[in-house]
Amino acid sequence: VGPAGRVRIQGRRYRHIRDIQRGTPGNELNVGLCDGKTGKGRIIKFNNDHLEMDVRIDQDPPPAVQITLILALPRPIMLKRILASVTALGVKKIFLIHSRRVEKSFWQSTLLTGEHIQEPLVLGLEQSRDTGLPQVFLRPRFKPFVEDELPGLIRGTRALVAHPEATDECPRHVAGPVTLAIGPEGGWIPYEIGCFQLLGFSSVRLGERILRVETAIPFLLGRLL
Amino acid sequence: VGPAGRVRIQGRRYRHIRDIQRGTPGNELNVGLCDGKTGKGRIIKFNNDHLEMDVRIDQDPPPAVQITLILALPRPIMLKRILASVTALGVKKIFLIHSRRVEKSFWQSTLLTGEHIQEPLVLGLEQSRDTGLPQVFLRPRFKPFVEDELPGLIRGTRALVAHPEATDECPRHVAGPVTLAIGPEGGWIPYEIGCFQLLGFSSVRLGERILRVETAIPFLLGRLL
Repeated sequence: VGPAGRVRIQGRRYRHIRDIQRGTPGNELNVGLCDGKTGKGRIIKFNNDHLEMDVRIDQDPPPAVQITLILALPRPIMLKRILASVTALGVKKIFLIHSRRVEKSFWQSTLLTGEHIQEPLVLGLEQSRDTGLPQVFLRPRFKPFVEDELPGLIRGTRALVAHPEATDECPRHVAGPVTLAIGPEGGWIPYEIGCFQLLGFSSVRLGERILRVETAIPFLLGRLL
Repeated sequence: VGPAGRVRIQGRRYRHIRDIQRGTPGNELNVGLCDGKTGKGRIIKFNNDHLEMDVRIDQDPPPAVQITLILALPRPIMLKRILASVTALGVKKIFLIHSRRVEKSFWQSTLLTGEHIQEPLVLGLEQSRDTGLPQVFLRPRFKPFVEDELPGLIRGTRALVAHPEATDECPRHVAGPVTLAIGPEGGWIPYEIGCFQLLGFSSVRLGERILRVETAIPFLLGRLL
């Protein structure tokens, strides 16, 4: 569609408007175009399996967060929720990487395949009224990623690796781009921390508490932003 | 037990050590006494349904966070996870209150009864190596809570209410005690925001993004602490 026009909504989004938002004709809802602008849509007709809406899509989405997240691949059962929350927070680049304490079987999860991995990203965008789909990169081998790709990635960014045993606190309210590496439950092993530090990462702690990854990510972003 | 001694572990904690931590005799684990000190325990004997451990409990738990959380009662399916995460973050006083956009039926949830509500708190403490059980107060009526109890609660604290439409940003790195009120999905209604403001709460926003309560809480705590 252009900046204004009539659209037809069906499937999951139709059911969300019907069952959760309880929309009726005349209601105005927030809408957005994937990787485009956002705006308002007015429900015109409500049918059995779809609805029609007049939309005006002329607003910019919220600004992206300048944080590249490097995340040891979480347990599949946590992955969806973490990806949705990271997306809602505005992160646009997510590297899921291997680490010694990531079980190899996690890499076999069907959740890592195209469609499945997209689903929580779209949910996160909808939640935060954003439209810019994050890029998710899978890196099932630690060493080639760290040696070949990471040096380029962190250029021009403040590179931080979260580590419970670090003595420095995580910095607050950082202006400019950040690369943030967060380990698996159980933490990075010393060799891995060594690799990050060799590249110039500062190792930072969250305080005296060990947090779950799903809690640590928004906590660290709240501090950095 | 005193500061040192032999203890017998069974039930959920026994299974956690056996199946998740994969403990074997000789291993040293982190231990803590509910509402007491923390320390180390060495596994001595591993039996079919229990194990024995020699413990030394002489360390202080991590310091409590000086934030009182006032939370519109979340959907029961989210409640456990939110309570565990808030506890892991070190909050010791949690008021679950009613708000217009909280469905009345949520108050009937069995999750709000004694034993059930304790379970996520204990998990949160274990996760963060803390021992001090938070107090959770249920306030199913908004007005009496706000009128009779809240003025005393916020005395001497910085009182903040999270509100997407607020123009002020949430302050960073606040020294001293804070009272933080977080609304339901859909937000506080204007009348409720008015009540908080009348008492002296500042209304603050998280940025342009709408976050789920489970993401907003650690995000705000990361910013405030």
